[in-house]
Amino acid sequence: MTELPGPVLIVGTGLIGTSIGMALRRVGVTCELADRDPSALATAIKRGAGLARSASEPSLIVVAVPPVATPPVVLRMLEDYPDAIVTDVASIKAPIEECVVDSGVSIGRYVGGHPMAGREVSGPAAARADLLEDRPWVIAAPETALPRAIVVVEELVRAVRALPFRMTAVEHDRAVALVSHAPQVIASLLAAQLLEATETSVSIAGQGLRDMTRIAASDAGLWAEILHANALPVSRVLASFRADLDVVIDELTASGGPEHMSLVRVLMRGQAGRERLPGKHGATGQPTVEIPVVVPDGPGELGRLLAVFADADVSIEDLRIEHMLGRPTGVAVVTVAEQAGVDLVSALRARGWEVRA
Amino acid sequence: MTELPGPVLIVGTGLIGTSIGMALRRVGVTCELADRDPSALATAIKRGAGLARSASEPSLIVVAVPPVATPPVVLRMLEDYPDAIVTDVASIKAPIEECVVDSGVSIGRYVGGHPMAGREVSGPAAARADLLEDRPWVIAAPETALPRAIVVVEELVRAVRALPFRMTAVEHDRAVALVSHAPQVIASLLAAQLLEATETSVSIAGQGLRDMTRIAASDAGLWAEILHANALPVSRVLASFRADLDVVIDELTASGGPEHMSLVRVLMRGQAGRERLPGKHGATGQPTVEIPVVVPDGPGELGRLLAVFADADVSIEDLRIEHMLGRPTGVAVVTVAEQAGVDLVSALRARGWEVRA
Repeated sequence: MTELPGPVLIVGTGLIGTSIGMALRRVGVTCELADRDPSALATAIKRGAGLARSASEPSLIVVAVPPVATPPVVLRMLEDYPDAIVTDVASIKAPIEECVVDSGVSIGRYVGGHPMAGREVSGPAAARADLLEDRPWVIAAPETALPRAIVVVEELVRAVRALPFRMTAVEHDRAVALVSHAPQVIASLLAAQLLEATETSVSIAGQGLRDMTRIAASDAGLWAEILHANALPVSRVLASFRADLDVVIDELTASGGPEHMSLVRVLMRGQAGRERLPGKHGATGQPTVEIPVVVPDGPGELGRLLAVFADADVSIEDLRIEHMLGRPTGVAVVTVAEQAGVDLVSALRARGWEVRA
Repeated sequence: MTELPGPVLIVGTGLIGTSIGMALRRVGVTCELADRDPSALATAIKRGAGLARSASEPSLIVVAVPPVATPPVVLRMLEDYPDAIVTDVASIKAPIEECVVDSGVSIGRYVGGHPMAGREVSGPAAARADLLEDRPWVIAAPETALPRAIVVVEELVRAVRALPFRMTAVEHDRAVALVSHAPQVIASLLAAQLLEATETSVSIAGQGLRDMTRIAASDAGLWAEILHANALPVSRVLASFRADLDVVIDELTASGGPEHMSLVRVLMRGQAGRERLPGKHGATGQPTVEIPVVVPDGPGELGRLLAVFADADVSIEDLRIEHMLGRPTGVAVVTVAEQAGVDLVSALRARGWEVRA
């Protein structure tokens, strides 16, 4: 099932470390576990992530400790196990790579990694064998990395069924600053604006604001640590964002007339940027159409609606629910292939569904 | 069905005006229509929104023209029809109220309104009788408004089955700046940051960023007009946001140590602000739990999943789909009442579904 040679030593049995162990055990790889917290270690063993560390020599070591603790642990592992490949799972890569490479300690055996499992929980109790399945796992190999080390880390990624993405450490840190860290800050800042709002203001908020602030519910302490660890790339994205924001504020506060070209330009750049995001199945670019249907409350209603799509043999590309203020109904916005749209709307209406567009 | 006296004259047969006419006709109210564009008027009449304006005296006039054109049209209607109540549907209220009140023209008969239909289409062809159903409709009565005028506008809101919210014009403009206009700017600015990104960066973007930039796809020209019309309240929200953003950027660019309390504070304020947003059914506060289930591609799969919930007699409070990069599967994240969660997870697994948490 996997070409990954065991045993694999996992140092740090939090959510990620324990999940990796569980996933590797599933494909028959021997795992050994270490954690300075005996109760976390005991939980991870109980979850089936592996056994306690023995005297055997690991062929691969996965360092799954918090970002700040990662460089010293990686270095110690490179020294303690002179034949093992060492990787880590920290959410920032360049500062860690720099520490390792600067140390000069047989650095060819180190390859960085970042499995991207967007979860809002932590600890070994929340771990799952399928946590990383179909998730991006960035592999950041230093220039000094041995080809054999890269191959082993790629095997690890495939063994847990994650999707490998090769980048340099610097590319990785810029990418996550842009698509994850800066958006997290912006969601929090926007949500924070609601603190001073009147009750009535908040009550007329729609789906757009709800979607934009969903990730603001994440753990503040953890995020502060991540943001500090990737401070420079994040601050660059935020500074670029702020420069555009200044243009908008200047235009809105200027006592100008109907000339609002820079605002239009900012909004149009937003449209174009939005279009770069991959949709379902990567970026197939197949044209789709949204069908908004009113769904009454109650068990089975949504399933009854989706039965119409199944009967028409149409795949659902996306689905979201827009809630109605203070009413026991919602609107299910179902995305399907464009060519299926017209017939579906007729079929839905024929069966008594209220289609809104 | 309604106490709203006819005939109602609708001036401006765009999306909102035509939808109001269609909704009023449905409950038996006589509607007459006017638009300076004969083809828009013809379409609205064909859609069943009413007949062309006659010599009869309307009891209520709904001015549904673009925001900039609204004050002069409202004033002309107050002058031309000395017995009619006049309302409007513009998405900003204070500047319009100011124009009307400053004119001194029998201002007691004017009451402002804002039906909040959040659609990305326009024109009479896209109108629907149920467009405003269950949507908030802010009623902004000037201090000078006659009680009778307020009652008639409230009847109008009820007749189209929208949800009336009473606010002052100034309160309204501040509220929409906070919950709609400023978030629109922020979504566009964030999406614009993606323009310069590498292909690989964009390809590892997750659901969080997709949700945060969804509304950036809206019409740029229309939004520029709305934002300019509500420039002061929007710029105040954006300036407050920018002040917090500066704190974050300063902290990230300062060569400090592990003291990152202001960043933690910003993130925690975001959590608290997020909690103020109403969930389904207003803000019932009933505890819920999210169940993430892997759904294979193909017609009927999602319906088959939801059948398990229906069989267990459990209502679905919310549902979203998280897409997997480059894979023909997604994860349906289903929100249900907390007390139903554990049994449901067992039932799902018993039927072979892969539950992720």
